[in-house]
Amino acid sequence: MAVSGRGPGRRPGTPDTRGAILAAARRSFAEKGFERTTMRAIAAAAGVTPGLVHHFFGAKDDLFLEALAVPFDPRRMLAGAVEGPRSDLGERIAGAVLHTWEVEVQRETLLAFIRGAMTSPEVAALLRTGMPVIALGALGDVVNGPDAAVRVELVFSQMLGVAIARYVVEVEPLASLPVDELVARLGPVVQHHLLG
Amino acid sequence: MAVSGRGPGRRPGTPDTRGAILAAARRSFAEKGFERTTMRAIAAAAGVTPGLVHHFFGAKDDLFLEALAVPFDPRRMLAGAVEGPRSDLGERIAGAVLHTWEVEVQRETLLAFIRGAMTSPEVAALLRTGMPVIALGALGDVVNGPDAAVRVELVFSQMLGVAIARYVVEVEPLASLPVDELVARLGPVVQHHLLG
Repeated sequence: MAVSGRGPGRRPGTPDTRGAILAAARRSFAEKGFERTTMRAIAAAAGVTPGLVHHFFGAKDDLFLEALAVPFDPRRMLAGAVEGPRSDLGERIAGAVLHTWEVEVQRETLLAFIRGAMTSPEVAALLRTGMPVIALGALGDVVNGPDAAVRVELVFSQMLGVAIARYVVEVEPLASLPVDELVARLGPVVQHHLLG
Repeated sequence: MAVSGRGPGRRPGTPDTRGAILAAARRSFAEKGFERTTMRAIAAAAGVTPGLVHHFFGAKDDLFLEALAVPFDPRRMLAGAVEGPRSDLGERIAGAVLHTWEVEVQRETLLAFIRGAMTSPEVAALLRTGMPVIALGALGDVVNGPDAAVRVELVFSQMLGVAIARYVVEVEPLASLPVDELVARLGPVVQHHLLG
């Protein structure tokens, strides 16, 4: 069904219905990954018809991106962590990333995105192109030199790996470690990656 | 089809046919993940009938585990890295892990396993239970103290994240960095995680 003339004042559906569908979509993408999530299952979880989901959001790709875009802005998250003494930069970044993961709705979104990147070349491409731009945009003033991009990507790799180990694999004792203790352990490593 | 009386001398199929099916399975699991891999597609890629694949290997789960078990033993990989001066332990472990990933057949197997862990609770459980046993078994003599398990899991998280960033997301410049330079950058971080 073609939807024309969309705009801020013309979005179909009440905010509650849209929100319920997005919440159901986020949960399903995070739990099952992109491929195994169906529009039908999302509709059922949100208590609406599949036709309504298509009408509001278009195809599954569109719903995925709309669900991704909601809960936080990674640029703002990193920009906030940059403020403060340089000696604690690593710990502030580790803390900002992990506290983002600790919030359920944000964790589900991040997981959906990572699962997508692991199984879909298109989503991997999105991450490949988007990650350096976002991270270097936020950290470029404090991480300089010809290897700045590699340094930032090594931080990305550490935080990605620890998130998967803690929230997906749930390996113990890492999964149950208090977040502040984990931040304290990761701080020096992130600091080393960024500033040597 | 039930296969009884299996044993070293009674495995059906020639080594070539079994090898071709296993190679096709590893490629497909690595590229598409567990869920999107079909026995039919594996059979087609190996040039045999789906019935033959089932006859040799049973269900898709069984074929997955058989494909996993082949290319290297993580306990031996880590045990080899433990040998040598303590001051370079982190770099030897980073090198052993990355050189394992650099070999295509091993990389495909590892990717299939990680994709499986990201999308299947059963495979995640396999990793959750198996990883600490294998890693602590190999590193327990050099990493001591009440937080040894956390330390080993932080190394796992760093190496997992860098593998995903390099081989799945293929983010640049990390993906094209010479492996020895990457090992040199990761060595101090792995050393810090393990020995503080």
